[in-house]
Amino acid sequence: MERDEWLNRRTHGDGVVELQLGRAPDNRLSGDFLRDFEHEIRALSADPEVRSILLTSPFKDFSVGIDPEIEEPDSIAAELNGAFLALYACPKPVVVATLGLSSGAGMFFILASDLRVSHARGAFEMIEVQQGKVFPVALMEIARAVLDTNTQRRLMLTGQRLGPIAARNAQFIEIIADDLQDLHGYALKEARKLAALPQEAYAAIKRDLRADCIARIESLLDGALMPQATGSRLAG
Amino acid sequence: MERDEWLNRRTHGDGVVELQLGRAPDNRLSGDFLRDFEHEIRALSADPEVRSILLTSPFKDFSVGIDPEIEEPDSIAAELNGAFLALYACPKPVVVATLGLSSGAGMFFILASDLRVSHARGAFEMIEVQQGKVFPVALMEIARAVLDTNTQRRLMLTGQRLGPIAARNAQFIEIIADDLQDLHGYALKEARKLAALPQEAYAAIKRDLRADCIARIESLLDGALMPQATGSRLAG
Amino acid sequence: MERDEWLNRRTHGDGVVELQLGRAPDNRLSGDFLRDFEHEIRALSADPEVRSILLTSPFKDFSVGIDPEIEEPDSIAAELNGAFLALYACPKPVVVATLGLSSGAGMFFILASDLRVSHARGAFEMIEVQQGKVFPVALMEIARAVLDTNTQRRLMLTGQRLGPIAARNAQFIEIIADDLQDLHGYALKEARKLAALPQEAYAAIKRDLRADCIARIESLLDGALMPQATGSRLAG
Repeated sequence: MERDEWLNRRTHGDGVVELQLGRAPDNRLSGDFLRDFEHEIRALSADPEVRSILLTSPFKDFSVGIDPEIEEPDSIAAELNGAFLALYACPKPVVVATLGLSSGAGMFFILASDLRVSHARGAFEMIEVQQGKVFPVALMEIARAVLDTNTQRRLMLTGQRLGPIAARNAQFIEIIADDLQDLHGYALKEARKLAALPQEAYAAIKRDLRADCIARIESLLDGALMPQATGSRLAG
Repeated sequence: MERDEWLNRRTHGDGVVELQLGRAPDNRLSGDFLRDFEHEIRALSADPEVRSILLTSPFKDFSVGIDPEIEEPDSIAAELNGAFLALYACPKPVVVATLGLSSGAGMFFILASDLRVSHARGAFEMIEVQQGKVFPVALMEIARAVLDTNTQRRLMLTGQRLGPIAARNAQFIEIIADDLQDLHGYALKEARKLAALPQEAYAAIKRDLRADCIARIESLLDGALMPQATGSRLAG
Repeated sequence: MERDEWLNRRTHGDGVVELQLGRAPDNRLSGDFLRDFEHEIRALSADPEVRSILLTSPFKDFSVGIDPEIEEPDSIAAELNGAFLALYACPKPVVVATLGLSSGAGMFFILASDLRVSHARGAFEMIEVQQGKVFPVALMEIARAVLDTNTQRRLMLTGQRLGPIAARNAQFIEIIADDLQDLHGYALKEARKLAALPQEAYAAIKRDLRADCIARIESLLDGALMPQATGSRLAG
């Protein structure tokens, strides 16, 4: 499968670009898919014509996480780190429209973005702890930066599944579309509003808010700090 | 205009001092006003007779932020940093009674204080991103320390205006006075309660809670860390 | 009184161990009691048979904090730091079942654990600021890591007492048992669920989430950083 098939760009005018995650049947994550996603995000980040990015899925689930056929999740830790660090550090506004299940590493499309719209039947979980897996460095640091400690415990230390209301209370979903037909429109409307903001100020404020976390991830990936906290552990 | 005119002290007994922000018509911020505010806060901080501070506004708005006549907001970045670092680091309890609009840099009277009472028609916004402006160092770091990441995004990356209920849910307003006539009384009552606490313990606990953020601001202002994250950028 | 009398272990099968805090009449904290608690937690942490820990109290209160007969709270700062750092760094899941009053240093059995069940008549307070006392290093850092800034202010800078609903809203209580007879059963059920998770992954994720705070406490205790922020201050 080629990049053209599983990552489709669609332009909506005024600098709004939709990036559809299209790895059938449920956006399970492979090394190639993650590498192509990182490549696309970096290209969109650098393109002066792009003023906001909208992430969507054409399937009934948003992303179920690492492809279950990958026996050794560690083998794609580098791709996971690369993809989600690129998304978290993206200087443009990123809106995500989620539906169905967002699970495991697939949750980081949500956590690393700026504004999240969910269908009312969405479900959110980070079941690594139940599977005996740990989080690669970038994912752990993004989760620590984005989630409050109580939500970290609920999601990451119990593997509990949350619905969209609980997710909104936990502050990682902002808007809920009761009707699936409204989901795309609601998310696109937010992407348009963000596209209208002055780009350089948006990028500067976003960078200042996230600079610590990004610097920390880069240090950890460079092995400068805490060499034990890498994605290279497998347990359970 | 002289300091005596735009910053009025009023003593309420038991060590409670009200500092009325009185720069007509809406406490727009100029370099002189901020310098005088910093001077007053430092004087109150050092005065052993002062046991708690109450910030109020006699106008229909609390503070609309930087004076719109200042064409180059960067020109008062040093004064903004000085004023709000002094307030955030003040060892005494600080209560604020807000009404009407608190906008932009004016929000930091609220964020840097300890207990916030709002009139039920209060409104809160940080519209720098819409104006293409960034936050000076001290303001960015105080916002990062005080607001959760979701509220940071809503206020600082969209410029959304919040009412007092949303502000209470976002945990930067604690008490709402439905009736404007109750606002001052409610806030004064809280200031009296805080004035009754042992002063040294209060100062020590407050310092321990905030020491990291204050040290970080001082490092950034000294240019030791992250020289790019200064208030000297203008964008948009 | 001997350790056997005031810390009772009870095994519930499947690796679930209950540790009953039994210093009559209300688990007031003394140096000996804290040292024995630390010793027990370290032993449970190291025991491969133990898969989760449940902390309970047989009294009408969970823990009222430092023994009021201790005139100089600083004299047990080292024991407070040792006990609660051991609990916060424990690699096993820790569930706590609270009832009645949890006050002052006694709050840290709750804050340093992983999942908290409270009786509906529980009450929570950190009244050090009212008593003119400061927090030893480990307790201050755990509170800063676990509580949001608004809750830090409410609990630590006013000494306000919270009920279980407010505590759940402030996200340091997860489950409320309306009936006292359900409290133990609810908490045991959670401890069993956590005992069923893969142990190594649980320990690794918990360590990654808390590593920063623990490293910081250890640095502060070593006097490497910020020598002023120790538990050796008494004020008021």
